[in-house]
Amino acid sequence: MAQIYDMIIIGSGPAGLSAAIYAARAKLDAIVIEQNYVSGGQVINTYEVDNYPGLPGMNGFDMGNTFREHAGKMGAVFSQEKVESIQIESDQVKQTEDAQLQAAESRQSGSLKKVVTDKNEYETKTIVIATGARHSKLGIPGEEKLSGMGVSYCATCDGAFFKDKTVAVVGGGDVAVEDAIFLSRLCKKVYVIHRRDELRAAKALQEKLFAQENVEMVWDSIATEIHGETQVTAITVENVKDKSQKELVVDGVFIAVGIIPNSELFKGLVDTDERGYLTAGEDCRTNVEGVFATGDVRTKQLRQIVTAVSDGANSITTAQEYLLHL
Amino acid sequence: MAQIYDMIIIGSGPAGLSAAIYAARAKLDAIVIEQNYVSGGQVINTYEVDNYPGLPGMNGFDMGNTFREHAGKMGAVFSQEKVESIQIESDQVKQTEDAQLQAAESRQSGSLKKVVTDKNEYETKTIVIATGARHSKLGIPGEEKLSGMGVSYCATCDGAFFKDKTVAVVGGGDVAVEDAIFLSRLCKKVYVIHRRDELRAAKALQEKLFAQENVEMVWDSIATEIHGETQVTAITVENVKDKSQKELVVDGVFIAVGIIPNSELFKGLVDTDERGYLTAGEDCRTNVEGVFATGDVRTKQLRQIVTAVSDGANSITTAQEYLLHL
Repeated sequence: MAQIYDMIIIGSGPAGLSAAIYAARAKLDAIVIEQNYVSGGQVINTYEVDNYPGLPGMNGFDMGNTFREHAGKMGAVFSQEKVESIQIESDQVKQTEDAQLQAAESRQSGSLKKVVTDKNEYETKTIVIATGARHSKLGIPGEEKLSGMGVSYCATCDGAFFKDKTVAVVGGGDVAVEDAIFLSRLCKKVYVIHRRDELRAAKALQEKLFAQENVEMVWDSIATEIHGETQVTAITVENVKDKSQKELVVDGVFIAVGIIPNSELFKGLVDTDERGYLTAGEDCRTNVEGVFATGDVRTKQLRQIVTAVSDGANSITTAQEYLLHL
Repeated sequence: MAQIYDMIIIGSGPAGLSAAIYAARAKLDAIVIEQNYVSGGQVINTYEVDNYPGLPGMNGFDMGNTFREHAGKMGAVFSQEKVESIQIESDQVKQTEDAQLQAAESRQSGSLKKVVTDKNEYETKTIVIATGARHSKLGIPGEEKLSGMGVSYCATCDGAFFKDKTVAVVGGGDVAVEDAIFLSRLCKKVYVIHRRDELRAAKALQEKLFAQENVEMVWDSIATEIHGETQVTAITVENVKDKSQKELVVDGVFIAVGIIPNSELFKGLVDTDERGYLTAGEDCRTNVEGVFATGDVRTKQLRQIVTAVSDGANSITTAQEYLLHL
């Protein structure tokens, strides 16, 4: 008979790795399924993390590694596989008014869940979804075609290719401004294209940005097309107030216009909000008994490393309580 | 005219220090009021912290220092003072049914709050309460009298005084078991007195504890009296099942029976639950406009370093939004 796991943790960003640490310390039979060779999720694309207490100024790639090593040291087990689907018996999903009754029944039945990957099929009592989020796209002509040929969603990954060149950053939040600061130290010139006349980013970041002499703000503007054949050559921007257009000659375009949750696999099974985030509160409990959503993929006000690691711990506490009552 | 602060952060445990980091990066005019010479709150009493991702096995004292240094590096400002009271205008407190209306009015009026300490009186737009929690007492004869003379609430602080001696630990949660493991490496013998016949502590900790040959479990028992004149000499325990009593000869008693919130200063101003925790959700918002409760002092399911640093970040995000609308 195949092994029945206490828990399958899907994803190995900060939330998944924190969950792995807590699950290992709780001696749960758990396995972390990670899609990529490298742990850390979006963190690995961050040049410098300054707001995770205790590790000031650490490079995001190193932080991912450090968290992963920590989890390994605690005894967490990892496997690199791609999750293709999860299967949950319908009586575990709370959809009707007598949700509490159903939940109680489901707890009693202790129905198992299945996690199907490209390599295995796991039977498990609980699933912790820690699949995080990914970069949004602009959806403009040239973006797709030139992706990897000058169009990038990760300045810290690809910035070095643009040393002494001219680039544009699209966006006005923390990530966009962090990217622009990072790029300004490498590149000859950096345009920052933002649809409004002020940035959303933290003040400290704004100050740093405005102190860079080779940064030019392109306010009230949106990117409408990226040009080039085998490499980016220019970007067209449109002023949202007077509708005027201009072409900026650039060698690269860095897009930082927000994130979308990696929740596609769970739609129809786990409730989401209108933007696709899995609906769950601080305790990470979803509408499905024994399924928990943790980190950036769940509905929450603030998506940061600190809130992700907190989620990881909370999801294990809630899951342990669930397991105790099976 | 005296300075008006954006924010007074009360307390410098993990929640307060994380709030300080986020406030500094947001360029708020904030000051952290800390009561003790040493930052870190309850963390400093932890021998070894294994569940804060990225810093496995760090000593709690060092972790407090590391967090404090991080906050200092980001530009956080600290002052060692004892808060004596806070003053809030009554229209900021939501007590009636038209709470939302009141809240809106209060936001418009932007009423200032006062924080009165033994050294200063601060005017501030927001207060972040991060005062944490402290050890519960047993309330039995001898406990108070012999406190500091063999009775301790902190094994990592006082354990070294009991090298090669016999001690008792009272409690069955994570902290009690951690304390017992720590003491078993120093002491000749360690009794663990627990009211139930199994421990609440994490399985990994239980395994470690049971592996120590000089630990004797005293199950189903409560401590009823601590004996001694100028130093602890013995402890009386009562079996809760058969009511039999016995006296254990010990040199020290370590009490680890849970925590109570440091919320006394705010009672009557900020809503609390029945145990005294300040009522606030994940966003750290209390019933008083501009007053936020963060870390162990607020109502929450899991009190850990990871959840405290998460709270710190969330409280600043919520406070910034409040400040923006003043």
